[in-house]
Amino acid sequence: METIPVPNILARRSVRRYTSEPVSEEQITALLKAAMAAPSAANRRPWHFIVVTERGTLDTLAERHPYAKMLFEAPLCIAVVGNPAVSDYWVQDCSAATENILLAAAGMGLGSVWLGVHPRAEREQMVREVLGIPAGLVPLCLIAIGHPAEHPPARTQYDPARVHYQHW
Amino acid sequence: METIPVPNILARRSVRRYTSEPVSEEQITALLKAAMAAPSAANRRPWHFIVVTERGTLDTLAERHPYAKMLFEAPLCIAVVGNPAVSDYWVQDCSAATENILLAAAGMGLGSVWLGVHPRAEREQMVREVLGIPAGLVPLCLIAIGHPAEHPPARTQYDPARVHYQHW
Repeated sequence: METIPVPNILARRSVRRYTSEPVSEEQITALLKAAMAAPSAANRRPWHFIVVTERGTLDTLAERHPYAKMLFEAPLCIAVVGNPAVSDYWVQDCSAATENILLAAAGMGLGSVWLGVHPRAEREQMVREVLGIPAGLVPLCLIAIGHPAEHPPARTQYDPARVHYQHW
Repeated sequence: METIPVPNILARRSVRRYTSEPVSEEQITALLKAAMAAPSAANRRPWHFIVVTERGTLDTLAERHPYAKMLFEAPLCIAVVGNPAVSDYWVQDCSAATENILLAAAGMGLGSVWLGVHPRAEREQMVREVLGIPAGLVPLCLIAIGHPAEHPPARTQYDPARVHYQHW
């Protein structure tokens, strides 16, 4: 069993600028292994992943999603798709898988950003159409990924006001 | 800025048996720093965390949640609570924060397991009542955490049938 390390969980930042260097097939597979190592309720794994590297499709997603201009530049997009018929925890499970992809990407020196789709119905419909996703399945998000051309520093946004001890 | 490493993302497994050793305050703070380093839509951070170490409260949660018997043994439970008024991506954001806690715990040699609450209305109401969570806020999950007394091996559940290239 290989190892997918994340040297510093605080170093995962949203990265929206990328170089033109492609992400290798080995890296893509490692990202998907990290995704599918996420926990899921009753281990139902209500997820699918669409790997997009074709420039035309990336450009279409960039044009039609209101906040995805970085896909004009990113060499890779992974769409995370949930199956609500398999689990009513699909949003949680697909979100954990998404976070694993973001962290694994950071761990291998890639930059990435989570682009929200669900619960915006018009974005869901657009992604379903562009990527040919069957009715009944729901795209949770798009993830833009590439070699980073910007390097935001590690941080936490730890706020003690959000922490309650023993009771609210 | 400190570092919170995850030596192997594939080594995070659900751990349901713990020793009686408590989790230190430093470890609890590091888990919360990892949680609040998660991304959130428009950086709204629609989350709160309730840290429970009192045996009586842990036992009450164990008794009243249908699948949380491990809280009779766990020295620590973190309840992740979302604020839907702040963001309609709160489930995604709180799930990413939860996954960060699970991974950071594994990285520091702790064991943990995600116990589903939302969207089960009766569990939400129970947790709200036991922990005094204000109306309008929603407990997403409970996380049982402790020093592991079982050691499931690293794995991915990578399934090539869940991967689609360019298009569904």
